[in-house]
Amino acid sequence: EVAHEINERHTNTAYLGQHCELPTNLQASTSLSCLHGAQVLIVAVPHEFLDELLPQLRGKLAPAAQALSLVKGLQVDERGNIMPTSLSIAASLGVPTSMLAGPNIYTEMAADEFAEATIGHEAGNEQGARLLQRLFNTPAFRADLCADLVGVDLCAALKNCVTLACGFCAGLGLGMNTRTAVIRAGHNEIKRLCREYFPVREATFGEACGIGDLVLSCSVGRGQRVAAAFVKAGGAKSWSELELELMPGQHLPDPL
Amino acid sequence: EVAHEINERHTNTAYLGQHCELPTNLQASTSLSCLHGAQVLIVAVPHEFLDELLPQLRGKLAPAAQALSLVKGLQVDERGNIMPTSLSIAASLGVPTSMLAGPNIYTEMAADEFAEATIGHEAGNEQGARLLQRLFNTPAFRADLCADLVGVDLCAALKNCVTLACGFCAGLGLGMNTRTAVIRAGHNEIKRLCREYFPVREATFGEACGIGDLVLSCSVGRGQRVAAAFVKAGGAKSWSELELELMPGQHLPDPL
Repeated sequence: EVAHEINERHTNTAYLGQHCELPTNLQASTSLSCLHGAQVLIVAVPHEFLDELLPQLRGKLAPAAQALSLVKGLQVDERGNIMPTSLSIAASLGVPTSMLAGPNIYTEMAADEFAEATIGHEAGNEQGARLLQRLFNTPAFRADLCADLVGVDLCAALKNCVTLACGFCAGLGLGMNTRTAVIRAGHNEIKRLCREYFPVREATFGEACGIGDLVLSCSVGRGQRVAAAFVKAGGAKSWSELELELMPGQHLPDPL
Repeated sequence: EVAHEINERHTNTAYLGQHCELPTNLQASTSLSCLHGAQVLIVAVPHEFLDELLPQLRGKLAPAAQALSLVKGLQVDERGNIMPTSLSIAASLGVPTSMLAGPNIYTEMAADEFAEATIGHEAGNEQGARLLQRLFNTPAFRADLCADLVGVDLCAALKNCVTLACGFCAGLGLGMNTRTAVIRAGHNEIKRLCREYFPVREATFGEACGIGDLVLSCSVGRGQRVAAAFVKAGGAKSWSELELELMPGQHLPDPL
């Protein structure tokens, strides 16, 4: 039980290894009652659990609360429209919602190495976003603000498709020229999709959440590693088997 | 002698290994007299030799000739202005000049793996550029045209600074989060410099010569490998010593 391990031993060995000590004031809980009166809710569950989770959160937060999503994925509404996850969190909870994304390999962060990220927020919520920035910024972690919530969210969600494509290429034994062409074409396709369907700012694609996250995920991300192994196995192993083999105790977010 | 090896054995072992056979109709020569009447001149010398070479080429080409530069680097004129190398080739030779650049690890290309590149050409030279495209395109190599010669050239030249920065970070033992932040910031700085001083098209940065070449060079390029080794050696080894050690018989273009 991860929550128990965090509270008793202040470690999370499956994700962060044996040697990363978590702060002793970090309390894990598997009960939503710990959210009562919370000012800031950070949502970091895989997006396939959101539909079940969000209705249970309503009314539990403080009146002036805000949410920050780390969730990568798109929601599809009843009419088949795609919707950035942070917007559906905002709609469901009725609180201002922002989104954090970036090239953040967490094992490096756990070792206090530098990383950067983007906090995407709604244009009217500068004040809330600055509070989040103060919460996250450390000498080793830099979170930039970007008044383009939808753009940040879409960059983070769509990136995963390109990551898988890169992994499939690697699994086919194709070299770095090919994989780089996939990253480049993928980046342009993400831009094109965003521009076609949403009012995304051009500069957002150049933020940590955009080209940064894409490049890192495609180079060393877990998704591309599993995708490469999937192709190499030639159909003999399922995605879940490979997850278990390559990253015991971890799960990748559902890429679709 | 590389020219002798190419003509006699159809190999270039220092750069392409033992097993890559070059076409038998490829003739190497160390004499400029072979250029008499040439229709297409492909310039692929390190840029520090251009000042000496270009004056010797004048008048040797066919009247309707064109040049294609593979040279990465900036020229600095008498007044201290920086100038893309392809423009100084065009000015010196008096022929239309284009530029090819992209994420092209040549060992993969020698093994007939896929790679893409950009041919940047002057807006008035579509016809010449299409001839170059026909010369270069194969099932495994795709060269896109881009009517932004200056932009293609600057992307290719400026990329090397970011590559070295990535290598220095790697040499300091910094992880992928940091190196990705350097790639991202470097890409934005290249854009900013180009926009400030030259009329570069925004779309050019998304071509193979732009983000593609940058990502590949920073990930597996020779420049970042030598830069990493340079930092690790802590001043005990010179740049040339490290080149000799890491890539015997090869030289990197002068990065400055």
